[in-house]
Amino acid sequence: MTDARPARLSALRALLTKEMLDGLLISGLANLRYLTGFSGSSAMLVVTARDATLVTDFRYETQAAEECEGACDVRIEASSLWKGVWDTIGDGASVRTYGFEGLHLTHRDAQRFSDQERRIHWRPTHDLVEGLRVVKDVGEVAAVRSAGWVATTALGRVLDQVRAGLTELQVCGILEHALRDAGSEAHPFPPIVAGGPRTALPHARASQRVLLPGDFLLLDFGATVQGYCSDITRTVVIGLSDAKQQEVYDVVLQAHAKAVDGVKAGMSGREADALARGYIVARGYGDEFGHGLGHGVGLEVHEAPRLSRTAEGTLPAGAVVTIEPGVYVPEWGGVRIEDDVLVGENDCDVLTSFPRDLIEIGR
Amino acid sequence: MTDARPARLSALRALLTKEMLDGLLISGLANLRYLTGFSGSSAMLVVTARDATLVTDFRYETQAAEECEGACDVRIEASSLWKGVWDTIGDGASVRTYGFEGLHLTHRDAQRFSDQERRIHWRPTHDLVEGLRVVKDVGEVAAVRSAGWVATTALGRVLDQVRAGLTELQVCGILEHALRDAGSEAHPFPPIVAGGPRTALPHARASQRVLLPGDFLLLDFGATVQGYCSDITRTVVIGLSDAKQQEVYDVVLQAHAKAVDGVKAGMSGREADALARGYIVARGYGDEFGHGLGHGVGLEVHEAPRLSRTAEGTLPAGAVVTIEPGVYVPEWGGVRIEDDVLVGENDCDVLTSFPRDLIEIGR
Repeated sequence: MTDARPARLSALRALLTKEMLDGLLISGLANLRYLTGFSGSSAMLVVTARDATLVTDFRYETQAAEECEGACDVRIEASSLWKGVWDTIGDGASVRTYGFEGLHLTHRDAQRFSDQERRIHWRPTHDLVEGLRVVKDVGEVAAVRSAGWVATTALGRVLDQVRAGLTELQVCGILEHALRDAGSEAHPFPPIVAGGPRTALPHARASQRVLLPGDFLLLDFGATVQGYCSDITRTVVIGLSDAKQQEVYDVVLQAHAKAVDGVKAGMSGREADALARGYIVARGYGDEFGHGLGHGVGLEVHEAPRLSRTAEGTLPAGAVVTIEPGVYVPEWGGVRIEDDVLVGENDCDVLTSFPRDLIEIGR
Repeated sequence: MTDARPARLSALRALLTKEMLDGLLISGLANLRYLTGFSGSSAMLVVTARDATLVTDFRYETQAAEECEGACDVRIEASSLWKGVWDTIGDGASVRTYGFEGLHLTHRDAQRFSDQERRIHWRPTHDLVEGLRVVKDVGEVAAVRSAGWVATTALGRVLDQVRAGLTELQVCGILEHALRDAGSEAHPFPPIVAGGPRTALPHARASQRVLLPGDFLLLDFGATVQGYCSDITRTVVIGLSDAKQQEVYDVVLQAHAKAVDGVKAGMSGREADALARGYIVARGYGDEFGHGLGHGVGLEVHEAPRLSRTAEGTLPAGAVVTIEPGVYVPEWGGVRIEDDVLVGENDCDVLTSFPRDLIEIGR
């Protein structure tokens, strides 16, 4: 496969020209990894029209040399990353304008710019690299697909072991174990494992609650492969489902299908959201779908673009997004079904293959 | 147990008076939890001499009401947390000065202050609540001790299952599973699981490397109970150890013992660090101990105070810190032994009880 990083740096440099910036300081770790390949947890990157230099510390000396080869220079800094940044930028004869990432720098760190004596004018930038990351290349799509495979493989093994009497935390442990066995490098976020009425809480964390016969069990989790994330949700029933569970499940399942059938490049995030929302509203559960339809997924598990009632941006071909309609009935329970899809010109391609019909565990 | 939160808020208000602040905006989630008990992931807290108001969104309505009762008011904001913050602060007749947490706000969010039309002067503050959190009360120490028990219980179960032929990722899965079974609410950080030469990397992440007979295996991980973290490291050998492994292990073990025997209130972080470092230097491995002796542990797994060559601050009685000397020989391997201790007036109390002599797995 060709190395995608030089083209990414070129695209970023075109943005610098457009923004009239002489350079850019990158502090967001996902942005840094996208441009250089560096996967460590402490570094900054200085990009100018001619140079790109990664500044990191001695712990990452070998790793940075290997990962960044062919993409940028590496500077190992003994005292602090900031000293390395100042030394990289230097002090030219004339005033220059540098950008920094306003979303990826604390106020305290940004104060360093005004404390400096150098002839640099600093200007906050927003989403320059994030914008480039929206359209995935072939290698990135393959990595998300692998992360999807790891997640669905683990899910199959977990559902074989789930039964009434286990706590949510125990199920979470079985899930994390299965994810690691299947090869997940990291958990993109702490798995959501919720049973019974707690499935009505869209952001429930696993608790000591014991699973009971007839409970919904909602599992929302992901895997990581080569830095790329997957994000998937399934809701099952422990034992036999009742009529209301079947109805709510069917509403979400049909809404999910409408979205998967209809999402394609050129529509807005709002239009994509409406594919599922319109159906849920028509079935009488509109007030119980309190979040957006989905979000981009890649080096971060939540990234651009958004699919929601207020998302006016257009979905491009090559975006990878989640489709995750849900219906939550307070104090009763909720259902969410989530998959990751690659947006195409005329349709979308599901990257997380796992059965979607209602599963009754141990029936 | 008495509710510690009112006394914490009083102590913070005394700091506001000292800093001549009319109010403080708290955005650091651990600080927020310390003052109010709120354990969600999206909220801000406005504290003045008279009032304390937590602003959060509809997802946390029930949870915030329960967790914050007796500590502060709760405002549920439909559109954005910032709107709730502005409405809480209001617009008085005279100019007032508010502080914010410079380390817990992005540059982009801090820009909102200058965009506001209100008569508020905003000033960055540093470590106000963090300073209060250094000395733990009885309930906090009990929570760290519980988190230590969960971690050591899991470790025992993992060492029963470890063997040559497993990958680091598989061991990581066994460990995460055991932690959840023992009741850990969350992983304070992704476990470090490193085998063979990779133990020389102090921040190695679990990989697909297969454990071989004679390998060092280093496990550095923690558990979370009631929001409080533990942090522990053990290094074992798969099968029989050789003479060099025994020597390096002994250096670290004796250095660990010197620190545990000597750490007490009133010494500086630098003096505590020297207890172990002096011994390691005397044994000829000074250059191979590249990090500090330890750090505070509590609601965050890395917090104040620091124990290192440059830490001049004094350790108070009631601080909970890690003691984690290590020796790392590049391309050969490394040993680290880490425990959490409660600093007392005349000694320290180990909160993570687990054997420290060299364990040879499956011998």
